[in-house]
Parts: sequence; structure tokens; C-alpha cells
Amino acid sequence: MGTMKAMVYRGVGKIVLEEVARPEILEPTDAIVKVTSSAICGSDLHIYRGDYSVDEGTIIGHEFLGIVEEVGDHVAGFAPGERVLVHPGFRCGMCEGCLKEIPMGCAKGGIFGNPTAYGSLHGGQADFVRVPFAHQTLHRIPDSLSDEDVMLVTDMLPTGYFAAENGDIKPGDTVAVFGCGPVGLCAQICAQLFGPSKVFGVDLLEYRLKVAEQLGSIPIDGSKVDAATRIRELTDGLGVNVAIEAIGTPATFYGCLQAARLTSNISIVGIFSDSVELPMSVMCATNKRITMGLPIKLPEYIPVLLELVRAGRINTRPIISHILPLIEGERAYEMFDKKLDGALKIVLTPGS
Amino acid sequence: MGTMKAMVYRGVGKIVLEEVARPEILEPTDAIVKVTSSAICGSDLHIYRGDYSVDEGTIIGHEFLGIVEEVGDHVAGFAPGERVLVHPGFRCGMCEGCLKEIPMGCAKGGIFGNPTAYGSLHGGQADFVRVPFAHQTLHRIPDSLSDEDVMLVTDMLPTGYFAAENGDIKPGDTVAVFGCGPVGLCAQICAQLFGPSKVFGVDLLEYRLKVAEQLGSIPIDGSKVDAATRIRELTDGLGVNVAIEAIGTPATFYGCLQAARLTSNISIVGIFSDSVELPMSVMCATNKRITMGLPIKLPEYIPVLLELVRAGRINTRPIISHILPLIEGERAYEMFDKKLDGALKIVLTPGS
Amino acid sequence: MGTMKAMVYRGVGKIVLEEVARPEILEPTDAIVKVTSSAICGSDLHIYRGDYSVDEGTIIGHEFLGIVEEVGDHVAGFAPGERVLVHPGFRCGMCEGCLKEIPMGCAKGGIFGNPTAYGSLHGGQADFVRVPFAHQTLHRIPDSLSDEDVMLVTDMLPTGYFAAENGDIKPGDTVAVFGCGPVGLCAQICAQLFGPSKVFGVDLLEYRLKVAEQLGSIPIDGSKVDAATRIRELTDGLGVNVAIEAIGTPATFYGCLQAARLTSNISIVGIFSDSVELPMSVMCATNKRITMGLPIKLPEYIPVLLELVRAGRINTRPIISHILPLIEGERAYEMFDKKLDGALKIVLTPGS
Amino acid sequence: MGTMKAMVYRGVGKIVLEEVARPEILEPTDAIVKVTSSAICGSDLHIYRGDYSVDEGTIIGHEFLGIVEEVGDHVAGFAPGERVLVHPGFRCGMCEGCLKEIPMGCAKGGIFGNPTAYGSLHGGQADFVRVPFAHQTLHRIPDSLSDEDVMLVTDMLPTGYFAAENGDIKPGDTVAVFGCGPVGLCAQICAQLFGPSKVFGVDLLEYRLKVAEQLGSIPIDGSKVDAATRIRELTDGLGVNVAIEAIGTPATFYGCLQAARLTSNISIVGIFSDSVELPMSVMCATNKRITMGLPIKLPEYIPVLLELVRAGRINTRPIISHILPLIEGERAYEMFDKKLDGALKIVLTPGS
Repeated sequence: MGTMKAMVYRGVGKIVLEEVARPEILEPTDAIVKVTSSAICGSDLHIYRGDYSVDEGTIIGHEFLGIVEEVGDHVAGFAPGERVLVHPGFRCGMCEGCLKEIPMGCAKGGIFGNPTAYGSLHGGQADFVRVPFAHQTLHRIPDSLSDEDVMLVTDMLPTGYFAAENGDIKPGDTVAVFGCGPVGLCAQICAQLFGPSKVFGVDLLEYRLKVAEQLGSIPIDGSKVDAATRIRELTDGLGVNVAIEAIGTPATFYGCLQAARLTSNISIVGIFSDSVELPMSVMCATNKRITMGLPIKLPEYIPVLLELVRAGRINTRPIISHILPLIEGERAYEMFDKKLDGALKIVLTPGS
Repeated sequence: MGTMKAMVYRGVGKIVLEEVARPEILEPTDAIVKVTSSAICGSDLHIYRGDYSVDEGTIIGHEFLGIVEEVGDHVAGFAPGERVLVHPGFRCGMCEGCLKEIPMGCAKGGIFGNPTAYGSLHGGQADFVRVPFAHQTLHRIPDSLSDEDVMLVTDMLPTGYFAAENGDIKPGDTVAVFGCGPVGLCAQICAQLFGPSKVFGVDLLEYRLKVAEQLGSIPIDGSKVDAATRIRELTDGLGVNVAIEAIGTPATFYGCLQAARLTSNISIVGIFSDSVELPMSVMCATNKRITMGLPIKLPEYIPVLLELVRAGRINTRPIISHILPLIEGERAYEMFDKKLDGALKIVLTPGS
Repeated sequence: MGTMKAMVYRGVGKIVLEEVARPEILEPTDAIVKVTSSAICGSDLHIYRGDYSVDEGTIIGHEFLGIVEEVGDHVAGFAPGERVLVHPGFRCGMCEGCLKEIPMGCAKGGIFGNPTAYGSLHGGQADFVRVPFAHQTLHRIPDSLSDEDVMLVTDMLPTGYFAAENGDIKPGDTVAVFGCGPVGLCAQICAQLFGPSKVFGVDLLEYRLKVAEQLGSIPIDGSKVDAATRIRELTDGLGVNVAIEAIGTPATFYGCLQAARLTSNISIVGIFSDSVELPMSVMCATNKRITMGLPIKLPEYIPVLLELVRAGRINTRPIISHILPLIEGERAYEMFDKKLDGALKIVLTPGS
Repeated sequence: MGTMKAMVYRGVGKIVLEEVARPEILEPTDAIVKVTSSAICGSDLHIYRGDYSVDEGTIIGHEFLGIVEEVGDHVAGFAPGERVLVHPGFRCGMCEGCLKEIPMGCAKGGIFGNPTAYGSLHGGQADFVRVPFAHQTLHRIPDSLSDEDVMLVTDMLPTGYFAAENGDIKPGDTVAVFGCGPVGLCAQICAQLFGPSKVFGVDLLEYRLKVAEQLGSIPIDGSKVDAATRIRELTDGLGVNVAIEAIGTPATFYGCLQAARLTSNISIVGIFSDSVELPMSVMCATNKRITMGLPIKLPEYIPVLLELVRAGRINTRPIISHILPLIEGERAYEMFDKKLDGALKIVLTPGS
């Protein structure tokens, strides 16, 4: 059975490298995955900073992939040795909550390495992970693709796809994405799948805007210009057809409203802690549709996105800023938290 | 040329019956319509109460129908003697604003009997009206239909259709409409076109709830129960798939949010004067889509709705509470303003 | 363990009542259902007539419902004593074919009582049935509904829904359904969910046209008039927006083409044995969309349709022409085969 | 008034350069356009070969653009000196046929330089053209774009867009276009707007396949391999999600059926003279949707496509194989007819 290395939550500001027990198969529908790459998500930072609380001792991480080590008796379709991407959450697929497709409605479901309300299963910043309901939590990685190629397909890219899809982008539309963090950049990549004439990427940090530009967006530096004003200038004074909010602040929410034209769609994918005030008389006179929520159809997006990556149509590689061994995980959290060294998406590699 | 009777704006609280000059063809694309029925709209009340201002001397009324009296040289497709429904607004269809489909973007466009910002053309609470761009402002009324059959197809019914369409109702969905005034009732009628399992109609006034019930809705009396709570009870505790706001107050807006289930659509068609606060963290965790605006595609809806009325699939007749001669117009405004005698939709008939 | 009664295939023209062994749980995901109602499907007649072949000894029947008698160890969400409707087919949901949603792609899947190519599991015209993958093959029946209320929700109604959905019916559209057998009538019922102005039901048999009329359709007797010509007369000479083929013959296929207007949709749900010739130059000049296929999303439709039946929006009861005890099954097959006594949908009740 | 040069129809095989009278404004809604570029369409070849007949003396050409020379009194929005693209057809927009959006339903409408059934107005392979209903027949060309940039936006590109749109391509889908003539290549360009993982271009001519490859397609040489077989190999044995027919022969129609996977869409945009036989039992078992027709929404597509060209997202320049002076028009027809010198799209430039 033995032990392994893992990033363990030990209180606010403390996600530390520890030697812990290796997980074992508990249910016949489980698989054990040997992790080869595991990314730090923005929501892991919320745990680090104490915005959410998880049980002490929880192994963190829900964006990871690896190699099947072992499968339970009832697991069909996956065998030891296969490279797999792991969906961030899991559900039984059989209970009433699952059959009615109620988000978070599965009694046995949860998210890896997350707050107790969402199930407290250990996460993927570790050498090994126990994966429940393996037949629907795992996705096979095409042979031709490296870990870096598909790392963001676990969570960031499907979330960006959800944001773009909610925007209902039509060919020829103009699109503005407020935020060039990993989700905002992935939303920009996915917006391109719908045939827009222009995609704008708004941020305050130059190193993030450079990545946006590299991905085909027109960068708008909100630290130097008023983003909405600049976007209107670049869209014949009309504003964009679709604005995507990928930060989660009132300022960027209002930026979206101001950058969007008459009869337009606003898609919200940022995580907000504050309320916003909706100027209803203006909203009603200008025909707005606002969509917001969690990407509950994420499992449906993953095969589509893997196919687009395999075909060379999508490349999220520029979003990965650092690849560090798992044993440098504590430094990685500090870099990401303080946005040091151009930290954008940091991947940890166990066993290296 | 002669004179005619008309309801003329003379200051706040004063929309009075006067003898005024009959309109004449001014442009070759004009038609003159002899009005046979003309309804008072809720937005006429806003003028009456001084919420909007129009030029003194303006004839009020944008919901009307009648018989073509005369047509200009360039009017194709309509001839004197034909019964026509008049679209509340008009536009040239040729300028840049029209070609780009910018709402209210036509330099020569406007709304009948309305505030100056929207063009100050005289309205339809009169014996005759000049109708610009007749070829696209008029719609022929099928022979088999009476004035009462189609009166609400001018404005209320297409607005209700817009509300229902924005809700994106799927077969089997549950729908709640907050408000049983003419627009809310028309939204309930139109919601039924999309195969819902249940439609709820919420109001505080018993006589309006009775009409909702007559139209096939499940009435919810907000003066006696908490509407959202009651709606949840009647939907297996889940809430509705689609909530439609047809009043324009923060209270009914929040009622919609509370009555709507996880992953649901909110469609706003009420006219708001206040802002509302959006609790973003709740909104994002519960997957909401909010659509709001003006029914700019109204001209496309009218032929569809006329067809449904003609086929007996839609009946808005129960919404008309009173039919009065135009010469009793002043009393009609008072009744509507004070909700006397069960006033819901009052129609004025010139020449009677 | 004991024996039970069942309708067993013994060669062309011979589906006979026999005493056979009662089924038992074989897999932990199985359930045993005590059948209370079981209908004869048109495709059972194809077996009876020898159009398809099944293994001798197969119990026939894929449209049935009943009471859970026993469940395997891994069945979640269903318990003995619950009333359940059984989906006509079953699949594991875990293998590659299932995960890729390939129709009939599940290695362990099949259809009850059907040809060997589709799995040869015993069917439901029997006292008891073994139901594989119970958690996704069973649907709970709401308490307020009788067997007759939901009998057609097993197969006919979702197939009719599929036909209507493929027609992409918009509010105000006119719809013609060629065929007033159970599927055609269910297509007419479901067409009404999309807000059409008129639904036409075409058939050659008067007793079937009467049911169409009872369900809200305009009956067209193809034995007395040319159906397409009559439909054009009743649609202002234009033809219908949507034509649905529910018979499966070249004649009704061409009837659909002739009854459909410029820019229209043809939805095919009849089972064809012959080819048809497409007059491409006419088709291209008249903007046609033809959709055909098997209702593979049937499991998604069932909960929606159950909800609509529960709410009283859908009533398929008039389509059931006869309810006979299972022991009269042989006579029932003969009646259905020869269209005796107004046979439309015959339900067999075991144990009575 | 004076004369001008034009390509005039003088019988089968004879479209000849002549000196003819210059057109003049006849209606107040007319404009006169000085042609700067005019392409030869495949349907012009049909006239040349005698497949269609037009009146002798008709000036040919419906794909052209130029500079506004003069406008009638009622033309709003366009002034002399502006560069404009001319829509191939025109309609009054006011009559019943127009208001009901009946294709070819306008009594005053037609197509430039075309068979009499569609109106016999003189076409654009000339120095000047009279353009009816200028306000909706003309589209302004953005300053930054050359004639070559937008030449195909008149007809080929919107037709290709129509084909792609009818295919209902989703992100990640695979697409096969049978035909690498101008329409097929434009369909390939437009397919890319919907986020496919792969687009295949099928043809028998190497020089056309080279252009397909240059435009981002995977070329399939039908003269060397069986196209459908090769496409299945390159799509994991499954076949494509969407097949587009852009030739108009039974062979390519069946190629599409064979290249398309279970549950797929076939979009037909080729012009057929023959019928095809539909194997209905196969079609129904494999869930197919076939769409065919004329691109009647073409005027809506043009502004979208101009915007995409302006933004650099679409480049149809590689499809133009030759630019010749109008006075070499006769040789151009011969080249195009016989596919000499790699003729793909030939543009004629008057006045040069």
C-alpha cells in the first residue's frame, strides 16, 4: 500500500507538501490514477486564502491527468496503462438527483479536493488519486497528445467553452472578453470557434495581454485606456455583439454592459462575491440577454474539445506559464497567489 | 377637408375630446385610415399621469385598426375599403438605421401618439389617422375576424409573444407570469403556444386573476399567499423553468428569481423605472438567463399571430373589459387610471 | 421460481400463449417487473407476418409497464412495489458505444422481444419480465396516472414526439401528418405542443380519422379526395409548413412533398421497405429539408411526456381501442393484423 | 446618353462583345452603377451552353460591383461616387410576394442577366448597369477592401455560407464538401466559421484541390481514391458529421451519403438536372437530415460576410484564377467552359 507525496490543506495560507497514505480502491466502480500532471486552479487559491474552507488534511487539486493504475471490478472501458484525463467532479449517474440532472444533486457525487459541501474527496496534486465512477469520470487521452496539450481540457477550456456558448456568438459577431486569466483566455480561444470577426481580450496585466494577442485576440489594456470606450471605437462606435465577463467584479460587469451594443448578449463566467445593480430602464431599452452559471454540461464538452485539440484547431499551450515538480508545490502556490514571474497557469508534475 | 373628433393631450391628467382637422396624405407612401377601434395602452396612462411628456396638442393612441380611406401614389398592396390593423410604430426601411436594424434607428420613423423622442405623429384615438410607410405599417385583417378579435394583435399580443419567446419555453416546462394586466395575460396566452405543462398567472387583483384562469392559467393571488412559495409547492418544490416579469417592479423581479428553478430563464417585459440589485453569487450558482428589452421584431410576429387568431388557437377577447364610444374617451381614461369597474383593456370606437 | 403465461414466437403467423419459466435476476443491475399492461406494436406485427425473424421461443413485446417485483444488488432508485414504465430498449451506459452515443452501439444492449440483431431478450407480453440496467431502463409512473394514461408513453408517444420535433414546427405553422395509426396520431398530439395554427391528419380509414378529429386534427380522408390537393385548398393554396410521414410508403412520401409549401420541412418516421425517387431539380427550387431516422433520444422524451400527461396537456387514451386479458393474446394479434373491430392500439393485461 | 461595351447573348455558344446603348434611370428607385469588376458564374455557362434560354440581346452577368454613377429621386442612403457591391437579384419589398417572403415571389423582381422567368434585366458584364430598388440591392464596400477582396461576396460566398449553415455544423464536427469549384470552395471557407475539427474538399481536378488545401481543407482526390472510403478512414472509421454537395450529380450525392456518419446532416447546394433514388430503409436506420434549396436569405448574409472579409477572417482571393479586361470576355467564356489554364473564377474588368 505504501505512501506518496501530496499537497495537503493545513489551514489558511498553508497548502503543504506531505507524505501521506496512497489511496486504494474502495468501490467496484473506482479507479486509481497515477497522476502525471496536475494544475493549480484559481479556486484552489480561494481555499489557500481562506475564502472557502475545506477539512484540514484534504489533498487539493481538481485539474489533473495521468495513467490508470488499477480499476475496480465494475469498471468497463478503461484498463491499467491507459492515459486519462480526469473530470473535476464525479457523480453516480443513477440516483434521482443525477437522473433529473440537478447540478450538484448527486448524493454520492463531489468535486476532487474541494469544500465539504461538494464532497471532500482527496484531490489530484498528489502521486495517486482514487477516482469514483471511473466510467464517466475518466476520458481517454488521444495518443498523439502530450500532457501539456490537454492539461487545460480538464477544467479551464470547457469553462471557457461554456462562456462562449452562452454568448450565442454568430459568424461575423464582435466579442469582448473581460479578463485574460486562464478562464478568460480559454473563453477567447473558444469564441474563435463560432466565426467572430473580432475578439477583444481585456486585462490590466501586460504579460497576460501578450498571451491574448498570441491566441488571436485584439488586446485592450484596461490600465491605459477605458476598455469599453476603446472597444466601441474599434467596432464602428457600436460596441460588441457579445461580452464575456471572466473576472467576477462589479467593475468588469459594468465594463461588459458598456462595451455591448444594442441587442447583445452578456455571458458571465467570473465568480462574484458582490452584488451588482442592474439599471433596468437602460437594460430594457437596449435589449440585453445576461446568462450566468456553472458549466454543468462540462462532461459533454470534453470529448469535443479533445477532438479540436487533436485536430490542431485549439492550442492552449501558451496559457501554461510554468511546469514545476510537485515537490516545489509550496513555491508554486506563492507564485500564483502573488502573480510572480508571469504566473498564469502552473502545472505540477509528480514523481519528477 | 373637414374636421374630426380625437383624444388630445392638453397637459398632465388632461387627455380631452376635441374637434380637430382631419389628416391628409403628405407623402406618396402615406395612407389615411378611418379608425374603427382604438385601445388605450398602459403607456398612454404614463402620458396621462405625466411620467412621459408629449407635445401639447398631440392626438394619443398607438393601438388601433380601421379601414383604408385613401392611399398615396407609391403605396402598393393596399386599397381603399380594406380593413387593416396598424402597427404601433413606423419606419422608412431604407435608411442606414433601418438597414442595420437599429431599434428606433430610423430618422423618419416613430410611434403614433407618442413622446417626441420617438416622433410626434398623431395617434389613433381619433376618427382618422395618417399612416406613414403604409406598405409596411399596415397589415390586412382576415375577413372572418371582427375588430375585437384582432384588437390586441396591434401591440399587447406581440409584446406577450416576445416575452414568451425570450423565455425559450420547451414542451413540458412550467411557466410563471408575474402580472395579469393585458401584457401579462397575452404572455400567458403565448406561453401556451410552446407546450408547457403548467402556466401560472400571478396578480393581486381578483378580477384579473379570473381572466387568467379563463385563459387556461393557474391563478396565484399574491395578495393572499407568497407567490414564489406557492409556485414552488405546485412544481414539486423545484420552481418553474421560465419566469416572465410583466409589471416592472423590483418586487415582481425578485418574485421571478425566487419562483424560478435551478437552470432557468427569466424574461423581462415590464417597464421599470427603478434599478434592481442582482445577487451575483446566488445567480451564478443557480444558472440563470435573464433577457430583457423592447419587442423590436413585432412586425414579424403580427402575421403569425393573426393566423393563430384566425385558426381559433388564440383568443384575446376575454382581455377586453370595455368597448366605449370615442366620445366617452375622457371617462375611459379615468376608469383605466383608477382601475374602476374591472377595467383591463378599454377599446374606443369612433363614429359610434 | 415457478412458471408464468407469455406470448411466444413459434414461427410465421404463430405468436401463441404458453406457460413458460418465470425470469430471475441474472445481473446485479437487473430488476424483475410484474407486468400490468403490455401493448402490441406495429413492429410486433412485422414479426408475426415474418418480415423480421426472431428466435423461436422468444417472448414478444416491448411496450409494457408494471410493478417492480425484485431488484438486483446494484439497482439504486427503484424498490419493489413501485409502478414503473419500461423503456423499449436498454443499454449499459458505460461501454464505448454508449459513451459515444452510437445508436444500437451498446454491446450489452438490446430491445425487448425483438430480432436477434438487436439482442434477443424476452419481451413484455408476459406476467413477468427481466429488465437489464434497471436504473436507466425504468421510469417511475406518477401516482395519479392509470396504466391507460401512460401506456403509449413507452414507445408510440415519444416516437410521435421525435417526428414532431424533427419537423421544427413554429407557432402559427400548418402541419400535415400522413397516417392516423398510433404513431401518426401521437405525432399529431405532439405537433400541437409547438403552437401550430392547423394540424391535418390524413388516412384512408374512417375510424382512424375519427380519432384524429377527436384529438384536435382536421381529418383528410385520402380514400375520397387527393389529400395534398385538399390540404393546399385549406392552407390558402400554399401547402403546409411541415409534413410528417408516418406510414412508410412511396405514395405517402410523395403526398408529403406535394402537400408541403415552398421552404418547408418533411419529417419521416414511417418504416420504409422501398426506395423513393427524389426529383432533385424541384426539391432544390422549393427549399426542402427532409429528416428521417430512429428516435434515439427517446429516453430524454419520456420524463417530459409523463409530465405533460400528468398535467392533463396530453391525452393518448383515445388511441387505445381495446384492452384484453393476456390470455386472449392470440385473438388480439389476429384483430390487429386484419384491422378488425376498429383495432388501433390493443393492450393486453396479464393476470386478468 | 451614348454607348458602352457589354457581353451580349446571341444564341447558344455565343456570348459576344458588343457596343450597346448605355442604361438610364427609369424609376425613381433606380441607380446606375459603373461596373469595375464582373465575374462569370457557373450559371452563365449554363446559358452559354443552351441549358437555359434567355432573350437574345440580353446582357449577361449577375456577379458584379462598381461605383454609383447616378441615383433616382427616391434612393436614400447611396450617392454617386460610392463603391458598391450589387446583389444578384432585386425585389420591390412592398408587394404581397415580398411581404410573405415567397422566393421569386416579387412581381417587379428578377435576377440580372438571367432567363426570362426570373426577369430579363440586363446584367453586369458591361460598362454600366441599371439597378432597380437600389436601396436594397446595393451594399456599400468598405474603403479598405479591393474589388478582388469582395468580388465573391456578390454570389459565391453567400451561397457557400448558405450551404454551410444548412449543414448545422457544430464545434468539433468533421465536414466533407464534394466539389472544389467556386461554390464548393466558398462552402469550405464558410464551414470553417463554425469551428469544425476537419474540413475535407473533394474534387477530381488537381488544380482545384490545391486551392482547397490553400484554404485550409484536407484535399481528397476522387480521381485517385474512393472519396467516401478515404474520408471514413480519416475520421476514425465513423464518417463526417456534415456532408455538403456542391456539384449536382447523383454520384456526388451518393458520395455524400456514404461519407456521412450515423446521425448526420447532408446539405445540397449543387444544381441537379437528374433525380436521385433515396434508399429509405438505410436512411431511416442511420438518422439523416437532408437540406436543399436556393439561398433566399442571401441579402442577410452579405453584410456579415463583408464584415468577415474586412476583419481578415475570410479570404476568397485564391479562388479568382484570372482577371481579364471585359474586351477579352469571349476568350474568358471559352476558358471557363473548357476549364483551360486552371480556370476557376474569371473576373472581367470593364474600361481596362
